[in-house]
Amino acid sequence: MDDLKHLKIAVVGSGAVGSYYGGKLAAAGFDVNFLMRSDLAEVKRRGMTLCEPGGEIRIPDAHAYGSTGEIGPCDMVLIALKTTSNGALETLIPPLIKPDTVLVTLQNGLGNEEFLAELFGKERVMGGLCFVCLNRVAPGVIEHYGHGAMAIGEFCGDPQPRTHALVSAFKEAGIEARIAGSLARERWRKLVWNVPFNGLSIAAGNVTVDVILADDGLRSLARYLMEEIIGAAAKLGHDFPVGLIEQQIELTLSMGAYKPSSLIDFIAGRAVEVESIWGEAWRQAKKAGASVDRLEMLYFLLRKLTEHAS
Amino acid sequence: MDDLKHLKIAVVGSGAVGSYYGGKLAAAGFDVNFLMRSDLAEVKRRGMTLCEPGGEIRIPDAHAYGSTGEIGPCDMVLIALKTTSNGALETLIPPLIKPDTVLVTLQNGLGNEEFLAELFGKERVMGGLCFVCLNRVAPGVIEHYGHGAMAIGEFCGDPQPRTHALVSAFKEAGIEARIAGSLARERWRKLVWNVPFNGLSIAAGNVTVDVILADDGLRSLARYLMEEIIGAAAKLGHDFPVGLIEQQIELTLSMGAYKPSSLIDFIAGRAVEVESIWGEAWRQAKKAGASVDRLEMLYFLLRKLTEHAS
Repeated sequence: MDDLKHLKIAVVGSGAVGSYYGGKLAAAGFDVNFLMRSDLAEVKRRGMTLCEPGGEIRIPDAHAYGSTGEIGPCDMVLIALKTTSNGALETLIPPLIKPDTVLVTLQNGLGNEEFLAELFGKERVMGGLCFVCLNRVAPGVIEHYGHGAMAIGEFCGDPQPRTHALVSAFKEAGIEARIAGSLARERWRKLVWNVPFNGLSIAAGNVTVDVILADDGLRSLARYLMEEIIGAAAKLGHDFPVGLIEQQIELTLSMGAYKPSSLIDFIAGRAVEVESIWGEAWRQAKKAGASVDRLEMLYFLLRKLTEHAS
Repeated sequence: MDDLKHLKIAVVGSGAVGSYYGGKLAAAGFDVNFLMRSDLAEVKRRGMTLCEPGGEIRIPDAHAYGSTGEIGPCDMVLIALKTTSNGALETLIPPLIKPDTVLVTLQNGLGNEEFLAELFGKERVMGGLCFVCLNRVAPGVIEHYGHGAMAIGEFCGDPQPRTHALVSAFKEAGIEARIAGSLARERWRKLVWNVPFNGLSIAAGNVTVDVILADDGLRSLARYLMEEIIGAAAKLGHDFPVGLIEQQIELTLSMGAYKPSSLIDFIAGRAVEVESIWGEAWRQAKKAGASVDRLEMLYFLLRKLTEHAS
């Protein structure tokens, strides 16, 4: 798997993240096959469009399928399904698998690699983190507001040739990709942003991130929550540089009136990834003996606030 | 002021609480004068009605006025304005005052006695806590669902003859009234319930108190918040009996699908008394060095959630 150009890739979960990263690979000439549900007919008719700050990328002949059986065995599967639908992977993935198929979860939060390892064997599991502002604005149409870096790593052990190959492939597709030495560490680092900003955007009454930063109380809460996550990560062996909180605040200031993905889901009445983001972080932190009272409160509130979505 | 029957009483803020307690006194033959705004014309035409579980009390000749200037100097002023309108007291109260006028705040939360003391002198300030389920269902029509006990005390120092006289007056009007040895202690004790249940009912997405108790996470949060308030009260010198939390849970179970007053206000788009309940409790607790992280989080969330109400 040194050169992915000759390999067959599937994307399971063609929401904003799956469509964007899969679309970038397809536009760069990789053989990418998208599993689609609601967008299938429209993408078959008109292809996919990625609206980037620098211009539009059209993928007129995107390979879209309604089932993984039609796609068949692949060398690599990018999984970007919402974690609230993880239960479906048990039946979606097997038709895509041959002995050396690699599964790469691009999903949010904690516990996804473990889930795939449990079902399909840990050796084939990789993970990627996407630091990106995206929105699916219409069937097959993804708007990219900014950022986009990825960190890609192995679930078990050190980076392998395949890890480097995937990073190279994304780089070739114009993505700022790098190797993640420790996937767990990267996931906790991402939670430093997701826990406060995705969470408070819902709990404070559907507010964008600039509103959180402009309000004294909410800004304090965001900082306290970041401190809790950094403290929990430290208990689990992941130390982050001093200044990470300030850096996250700066980063967030640059986003303007950005709606975190969880808020977009919540407003649309769709399921919110409460368990993989706040629930699993809370469970792992508690188990490690970290003090996470505010994370707990946010988790309990969000669990109730989002229970009616599907 | 041994016998209030000969004295002139004003009620400022004739919402549910002011109309109910003032109405009970008026029906018992006391000289009660109501300051009214929206209900004025209707009450002048038809009087007031208190719908009690045991039957209806009519006050056909309720003394209703559109300004405190028309009422003129009184011996006692019952203040039941929403605390979010406290700013208006600076101009509403002076026409009612003579040298020995007593001001009794029946308002929610903390800081109201201090506010009146600052403006009009601490010697004349008393306070009352109302443990009651009321709703103003139409102009001049108050529905009384249950409970109704009052605790009345002096802002400064021990109970005086006037404290006993006011308790007697309310008793004569059929109210279960008692002397509050320490008003501050009673107010903190009331917050043990109001902080979690009024607060979570809004923050968890407009839920009634039975929903809070039925949800594992929210029930834990209610307990933790009660612990924080009891801890803060202890730092301020107010100790409560062991078992208060269990007793509050039991009490709340008996309420069924009850909507706390703050939730009713919030749903109706009316101002919520965030500062006098959560804000002032948080400020006093922090000043006393108490650990109130969850109270703080709830306060900051509620401040944002309710900011658009008026």
